[in-house]
Amino acid sequence: MKQMTLGADGPQVSAIALGCMRLTELDDRQAASLIDHALALGISAFDHADIYGGGECERRFARAARLSGARREGVFIQSKCGIRRGYYDFSFRHIMASVDDILQRLQCDYLDMLLLHRPDALVEPQEVAEAFDRLQVSGKVRAFGVSNHAPLQMALLQKVLTQPLRVNQMQFGIAHCGMVRSGINVNVQSDAAVDRDGDTLNYCRLHDITLQAWSPFQFGMFSGVFLDHPDFAPLNQALETIAARHGVSKTTLATAWILRHPAQMQVVAGSMNAERLAQIAQACEVSLSREEWYQIYLAAGNPLP
Amino acid sequence: MKQMTLGADGPQVSAIALGCMRLTELDDRQAASLIDHALALGISAFDHADIYGGGECERRFARAARLSGARREGVFIQSKCGIRRGYYDFSFRHIMASVDDILQRLQCDYLDMLLLHRPDALVEPQEVAEAFDRLQVSGKVRAFGVSNHAPLQMALLQKVLTQPLRVNQMQFGIAHCGMVRSGINVNVQSDAAVDRDGDTLNYCRLHDITLQAWSPFQFGMFSGVFLDHPDFAPLNQALETIAARHGVSKTTLATAWILRHPAQMQVVAGSMNAERLAQIAQACEVSLSREEWYQIYLAAGNPLP
Amino acid sequence: MKQMTLGADGPQVSAIALGCMRLTELDDRQAASLIDHALALGISAFDHADIYGGGECERRFARAARLSGARREGVFIQSKCGIRRGYYDFSFRHIMASVDDILQRLQCDYLDMLLLHRPDALVEPQEVAEAFDRLQVSGKVRAFGVSNHAPLQMALLQKVLTQPLRVNQMQFGIAHCGMVRSGINVNVQSDAAVDRDGDTLNYCRLHDITLQAWSPFQFGMFSGVFLDHPDFAPLNQALETIAARHGVSKTTLATAWILRHPAQMQVVAGSMNAERLAQIAQACEVSLSREEWYQIYLAAGNPLP
Repeated sequence: MKQMTLGADGPQVSAIALGCMRLTELDDRQAASLIDHALALGISAFDHADIYGGGECERRFARAARLSGARREGVFIQSKCGIRRGYYDFSFRHIMASVDDILQRLQCDYLDMLLLHRPDALVEPQEVAEAFDRLQVSGKVRAFGVSNHAPLQMALLQKVLTQPLRVNQMQFGIAHCGMVRSGINVNVQSDAAVDRDGDTLNYCRLHDITLQAWSPFQFGMFSGVFLDHPDFAPLNQALETIAARHGVSKTTLATAWILRHPAQMQVVAGSMNAERLAQIAQACEVSLSREEWYQIYLAAGNPLP
Repeated sequence: MKQMTLGADGPQVSAIALGCMRLTELDDRQAASLIDHALALGISAFDHADIYGGGECERRFARAARLSGARREGVFIQSKCGIRRGYYDFSFRHIMASVDDILQRLQCDYLDMLLLHRPDALVEPQEVAEAFDRLQVSGKVRAFGVSNHAPLQMALLQKVLTQPLRVNQMQFGIAHCGMVRSGINVNVQSDAAVDRDGDTLNYCRLHDITLQAWSPFQFGMFSGVFLDHPDFAPLNQALETIAARHGVSKTTLATAWILRHPAQMQVVAGSMNAERLAQIAQACEVSLSREEWYQIYLAAGNPLP
Repeated sequence: MKQMTLGADGPQVSAIALGCMRLTELDDRQAASLIDHALALGISAFDHADIYGGGECERRFARAARLSGARREGVFIQSKCGIRRGYYDFSFRHIMASVDDILQRLQCDYLDMLLLHRPDALVEPQEVAEAFDRLQVSGKVRAFGVSNHAPLQMALLQKVLTQPLRVNQMQFGIAHCGMVRSGINVNVQSDAAVDRDGDTLNYCRLHDITLQAWSPFQFGMFSGVFLDHPDFAPLNQALETIAARHGVSKTTLATAWILRHPAQMQVVAGSMNAERLAQIAQACEVSLSREEWYQIYLAAGNPLP
């Protein structure tokens, strides 16, 4: 498993993280097996959020981890806070309370990283800074990041934060690749050129913020998986052809497509299936050519001017 | 009435400004009453533009102010220039002539602040800088700002200006809130995520430029007022419920929604109605919770991913 | 012919460049005549790309130049690389090989400037930096730029490049003027306000990067020329009226419209017609008023809020 650094000089993690959003689909023992399986594959980073399963995913993970061979120092655990029922909340009070709740559910002394889940329009950067300082000093959180943030939202936070933002977790995959598509189509009078993220990809590259890709196989927002989906026939055909050439599965290839990007993203894969997880992990060994990367991009219906 | 500072260390003003775009709807005596009424409410900032009423609004204001109890040093008067018939013009010559005309119509020796009304595609920053320098040295204008400007347009000006841009007056309200909506919907494949302003809100927060909100109760561009408008039934319902909880009117609440934002915007309210103006002024005393702010945002049909 | 500087202190060039994309429409002798004609008009800059005519345009130019009165030191030759069949490629290896091929086809010892043609999503800035350094040291390329790039794409490159990016060649003309239209319509809830280029125009002004305007008379992407096109009747009417006032042709006026912009763009005109080229060159002598510039902008259907 390929290892990578989060941010310029942050923690070392596996290039694939296991997303635990659907962990409640498994019982404790199945979840323990999945964790052991992930670790055997070299996947030692686990992605949580306080809202996954209404908190149940973190609880399930804690129980399963105890049944598994995982040791706390051998894994990297991140979680997210800031989304509440019907609103977002980056207040000092909510961040502090959320982390305590997360740690209790995870039965952990500390988080390796905390992410702010979705940009709170009412954010007071000074409150976030105070929360992060306290969380760091108390040892409850070791690194910090954001999710779904645009450049100036990060800049507004970073201006007053003591800690560097290490990551920005964004939805990214072949069928949701606006972050690269708008850059390829600059100044074309089409929807493909429309900026919907402030060019956060290049901002992150410029400022050494690691992009984590969530929902790597989805299209739309949780609309479905493009693999073997009839609406993505040319894409699946292209994946099949290129996958065969590399002797891997389409899942492996779709993962390798993300890893191929020079921004060196970490892939957050939420598969609860052992076989598929192995295919995802295998992506680190695939070297896609530039031409293949673009062929896949095009096969998904993304334009090249 | 809440007081606020324009920019990092600019002039002190009331958090509500009276927009004088429709002042010609009143005769001199009625306008004088409105000014007295505004002052009694603590609203001491008055927003003009050379084009309002073709100049007649500034003239009306001058005559009414003389009939009112207003003293020049007790009020903050801003006006705007740069829009001409069919084009925009930030040339040195036009700015200088415009200010002289404004001062003559307003019967004033100086403007507390001058705004460039809409971005002139043909702007020569050096010409603006020379105009601003002369206007400041001559005492004709005490502070400077822009209106409807995107980040790099401001940066291009600021690079050569001696004076800090204190404000950016943008259309903003519950039913025209693209400035926050695109930030909330970063990277979502929908129109709500589309960037139409370069994230000017976060740019202004980063650079200590105060946002002034124009047309706070309108939808579209002068398409109408959303209050009690049948097309905004869920919004009006939500406003009613929350307003009742706070014991205020919907108008007060719609104003408080803008004031609640941590960017600390100043609200430019153009009501010519004494009763409504009192309701607007009352907004400074309302403390909206984060949850209420988002409820109102959502009730207007704005999405939260 | 007006002369201009590329970038802050780069090479001096003519304000009009001859775009050689369609040079294969002429035989060697006709092409030689066109080159002589251009030089007589003061047009001494020639724009190429490795893909124009599949390389044939550069070969044709080399043969024609030998038949013409052009001397190498009297002309400014730029070419572009990075577009391959079905993908873009800014790898060290491809840039180096491309320049060698370009020089061989052009029968030149050096390029006055090399542009990266369209943003490669997989760009590794360090590879570009190494290529540019080698090309400069070897004397093969004297200046560098990009084409169709957004601000952060340029920033990502410039961060590691030794050489300043002198130009950004963008599609720009009356009927494809999103670069100014979105700036004029900031924060309007319409398509005209939508950002499709990250405000590259103001970024280039801020950072002294010269904009070169490609396809100055086209609408869409190679969809056709708006001059005398029935879909652009009001525009042609406005051009006719204003052109008559200045005693020039519509072609001259459409060129002058671009030159009028204070960003001081260079116009890359791809006309293979001697008469039209003379009309284009004449644009340097036309002084459009601000009002006329906006009249033409509006006549093309572009909105002014």
